[in-house]
Amino acid sequence: MKKYTIAIHGGAGTLVKGNMTSEKEKAYRDSLELALTNAYALLENGGSAMEVVEEAVVQLENSPLFNAGKGSVFTSTGTHEMDASIMDGSNLKAGAVTTITGIKNPISLAKDVMLHTEHVFLAGGGAMEFAKSLNYEILDPSYFHDDLRYQQWLSIRDTDGFQLDHSTRDSKFGTVGAVALDQAGNIAAATSTGGMTNKRYGRVGDSPMIGAGTYANNLTCAVSCTGSGEYFIRGVVAYEVSALMEFKGLSLDEAASEVINQRLLKIGGDGGLIAVDVHGNVTMPFNTEGMYRAMMTSEGVKKVSIYKD
Amino acid sequence: MKKYTIAIHGGAGTLVKGNMTSEKEKAYRDSLELALTNAYALLENGGSAMEVVEEAVVQLENSPLFNAGKGSVFTSTGTHEMDASIMDGSNLKAGAVTTITGIKNPISLAKDVMLHTEHVFLAGGGAMEFAKSLNYEILDPSYFHDDLRYQQWLSIRDTDGFQLDHSTRDSKFGTVGAVALDQAGNIAAATSTGGMTNKRYGRVGDSPMIGAGTYANNLTCAVSCTGSGEYFIRGVVAYEVSALMEFKGLSLDEAASEVINQRLLKIGGDGGLIAVDVHGNVTMPFNTEGMYRAMMTSEGVKKVSIYKD
Repeated sequence: MKKYTIAIHGGAGTLVKGNMTSEKEKAYRDSLELALTNAYALLENGGSAMEVVEEAVVQLENSPLFNAGKGSVFTSTGTHEMDASIMDGSNLKAGAVTTITGIKNPISLAKDVMLHTEHVFLAGGGAMEFAKSLNYEILDPSYFHDDLRYQQWLSIRDTDGFQLDHSTRDSKFGTVGAVALDQAGNIAAATSTGGMTNKRYGRVGDSPMIGAGTYANNLTCAVSCTGSGEYFIRGVVAYEVSALMEFKGLSLDEAASEVINQRLLKIGGDGGLIAVDVHGNVTMPFNTEGMYRAMMTSEGVKKVSIYKD
Repeated sequence: MKKYTIAIHGGAGTLVKGNMTSEKEKAYRDSLELALTNAYALLENGGSAMEVVEEAVVQLENSPLFNAGKGSVFTSTGTHEMDASIMDGSNLKAGAVTTITGIKNPISLAKDVMLHTEHVFLAGGGAMEFAKSLNYEILDPSYFHDDLRYQQWLSIRDTDGFQLDHSTRDSKFGTVGAVALDQAGNIAAATSTGGMTNKRYGRVGDSPMIGAGTYANNLTCAVSCTGSGEYFIRGVVAYEVSALMEFKGLSLDEAASEVINQRLLKIGGDGGLIAVDVHGNVTMPFNTEGMYRAMMTSEGVKKVSIYKD
């Protein structure tokens, strides 16, 4: 029987253990598990890796707990700017959007860029114009309102800061993502984010950047990253895992660990990633205190975790 | 004596030989030579690689002949949207901007993102707000008006097309870039573009993407790309050259050639790149008919070329 597998993440900026109540922890775990099992059901029924990673990310975008879609944080002007990207390992096709507003599921718009344009990456007003041409509904900002995010923003909006302290670090590194290996032997990766609380100036992080936040290639691996985006861009992190496998012969686990625990740390970057290969291997390294993450395989492995095991 | 060197490009989408008059060819060569010698003078006087690549790109942005800065092509709505990025190989710091308007020298704004924010990449209105905060002059659209570009745009603006035929292919692949090795042994890379004629939807190409269009790392190489941007994004081309050197032990020339003549072609991408390493090697491969390019080294090599040698 063919192996198939799915892994998801809800960001490497978890609440520090001291601030995590058992109630909150249950809410996060339940939300991860729901996304995981829904995406796995699709995988089990023969869904393609692309369909499965989109579905998993849509589920996470629809949860108010994670910084993407509905749960997106507030920018410096009190708006929600979102980024997303998706890549198909079977043909290296990709789609991405940045600084978009009012779209319920940015990951689906990224996929539509891939499917319905000759481009890979659309930004801002132009991306919104494209969304409208496909009859995407533009939601009222109230859809994205969340009291916790709003309080986080109020507490720093009159500062130049976007670097939050540890107690609210989750809003700094919030991202969601998924990687999957399907029954046909193809892999794919998807990443979506609501950015950084109080971010200014149309900042683009690694999440919508193919090579930095997202990468997939059947030859090597499918990767979705979460962390201090600027360092992931400078390290070209998602593609680096692939390059270490292809050019240096490392295994998925070795490559991902070298990137997160050696190379990224060396330039000062915090965060983690999830990755799969076509053999059904999964790895989920991070160099932060925790990373919301979950995985499920056709061999019966199922895991939902927040902190180090 | 320390070696130092500079290489520049003005895009891999040159006029096909049949459409190139000796007058036009002289204009292109003169413009390349001017940018080259000015940047080389700075290098000779001890300028840093970062200063030198910025200066070279500023010179090319100020020429109406190349698709960047003043010579930027028209978008589908008759505006000029520009992208640029720069990376410092000595510390892997980088800056980038996308879909900006009215800025004379986008490369300088990209450098200011690196120097004056905690971010790498700013987009659209937010990037413009940042430019205004630094008192950048916002130029009238007339500064960017060029009759040739305007005629090119008029001829296709009522179509869905942005893929031009061979006779005007230069506007498709127009980009400028520079790489340099300075006397201190550091390398840097910079890339700037006016995008694609008649482009829609805020399309972002490879030029502002660290890893795709621009990459620099003293350990390996500094690279600036030009070509069919979507393929350069999917191939993570600039960083791929570095990865082949670092992880597979290829020389600069071998790595750049493998990327442009094998890997990029395999996924259907057209274009080229310029690259240097810390040993003073230079390579300028392309898989198109020509690439506007020039190089000058402390060992007395000087070259200004358009078509294959």
